[in-house]
Amino acid sequence: MELWFTEKQTPALGITCKVRSTLHREQTPYQDLAVLDTEQFGRMLVLDGTVQTTEADEFVYHEMIAHVPLFTHPGPERVAVIGGGDGGSIREILRHPTIKVAELIEIDRRVVEVCQQYLPGLSGSLADPRVQINITDGINHIAASEGVYDVVIVDSTDPVGPAVGLFAEEFYRSVHRALKPDGLLVAQTESPFVNQSIVSTSFARIARVFPICRLYMAEIPTYPSGTWTFTMGSKVHDPLAVTAERVGGFLGKYYNLDAHRRSFLLPTFVRELTELGEK
Amino acid sequence: MELWFTEKQTPALGITCKVRSTLHREQTPYQDLAVLDTEQFGRMLVLDGTVQTTEADEFVYHEMIAHVPLFTHPGPERVAVIGGGDGGSIREILRHPTIKVAELIEIDRRVVEVCQQYLPGLSGSLADPRVQINITDGINHIAASEGVYDVVIVDSTDPVGPAVGLFAEEFYRSVHRALKPDGLLVAQTESPFVNQSIVSTSFARIARVFPICRLYMAEIPTYPSGTWTFTMGSKVHDPLAVTAERVGGFLGKYYNLDAHRRSFLLPTFVRELTELGEK
Repeated sequence: MELWFTEKQTPALGITCKVRSTLHREQTPYQDLAVLDTEQFGRMLVLDGTVQTTEADEFVYHEMIAHVPLFTHPGPERVAVIGGGDGGSIREILRHPTIKVAELIEIDRRVVEVCQQYLPGLSGSLADPRVQINITDGINHIAASEGVYDVVIVDSTDPVGPAVGLFAEEFYRSVHRALKPDGLLVAQTESPFVNQSIVSTSFARIARVFPICRLYMAEIPTYPSGTWTFTMGSKVHDPLAVTAERVGGFLGKYYNLDAHRRSFLLPTFVRELTELGEK
Repeated sequence: MELWFTEKQTPALGITCKVRSTLHREQTPYQDLAVLDTEQFGRMLVLDGTVQTTEADEFVYHEMIAHVPLFTHPGPERVAVIGGGDGGSIREILRHPTIKVAELIEIDRRVVEVCQQYLPGLSGSLADPRVQINITDGINHIAASEGVYDVVIVDSTDPVGPAVGLFAEEFYRSVHRALKPDGLLVAQTESPFVNQSIVSTSFARIARVFPICRLYMAEIPTYPSGTWTFTMGSKVHDPLAVTAERVGGFLGKYYNLDAHRRSFLLPTFVRELTELGEK
């Protein structure tokens, strides 16, 4: 028997992967949670039918959502991740020696627990003593914080269901207040090919809240179109000013100084998405 | 009825697209040729079941395979495209005012004819008086040429069937002879995620033939993994030395000076593919 998992990434486009076995499946209070073992990408976390991360390509997403802001900041000590219950972003954050506290703020306890069981390469990081896990609504948690974080990373699902509020301007204002005076935000902001209005709207909202706003891109094969954007909002530090001295000899599997610089150099049609404003 | 076209990009991975209609289908002497009208990507050229180009994302591929070498060369006059029967690469080449002759060397006459009927946005370029169409085997044609081209572009299918010889070191030596003393070659060299041995082997072969060899990348949603590589072999001109003065105000939908620079800044795992040598 051949078993294939197909995600309809849009109503007219899908990705389909051969599945060795379904390792886990449950309905949590928030979503349909599954872990599949796929032939092409290894283990795959799927929420509400949408691929979240896979063993084969998670390094691109997690390195780029973590190291770009953490090398932009001159000495990050306290970082919060909203979402990201798989632990991959926390793993990369902990590679920065200045980190004192890495806070995981995940709404769905079962995502954390199931990833601890099936994706230890990502979630193993959560056992580090610098990690604080808060199973709570990220929007409320951030709204209750003031001037405490160097970096806030929004490692959310797509803007449907529980994550809608994480794409709202009110939330970005809340993050601004939760950050220290030289803090910065990074949010995943979807595909420049198939989610153009989300990209331009998110960018416009973050640009209204933060004096420095920059879009950057990375290649993630299991996400719609294979290319993804992230938007950084920063009070002081500019990611374009990152230096070789700051990055030092750091080499990820994806991230390096060239990859950092690459990510902000935009093709014309993507640059235009940052000039459109909110639709 | 819902009609979906699925390409198995690897034995364990596929892309699936909703189809409005099959506009054309035939078996040519070389391959199974189809043009589909898809909801997500518009019209799509499919050869032997593999997506070659679509109206929605062809701009990335054709701009990057053409403008990167043509702006690297200080004044290209005579350019050859091997393959590329759809006309998209020729269209971009003709945007360079120094061009006197753009030669299309395509083995399968039916690809040209069918694209002239169904993909006029690409093939319309072939009516330009600067274009010479040669329906012939590119390997023999290049082997019979000496010192005539400024730029040779290998716009081939994957290295199976008729295109295998276009990935051989002997062919790259042949291109070297066919080029003028300051000429350069660009070849499409597959995905850095799912075709790693082709990427590293092609790079090693071109690096043995040309003193300057550089890998560059672009995001193409309908190709396996959504990210593609190109390899440039050059006798004299270095693509990293391209200047704002040379590019002038040129703006493609994808290409601009930032996009040119971006494409050569490689993530660690791709940089490593250029250091592996032939397997």
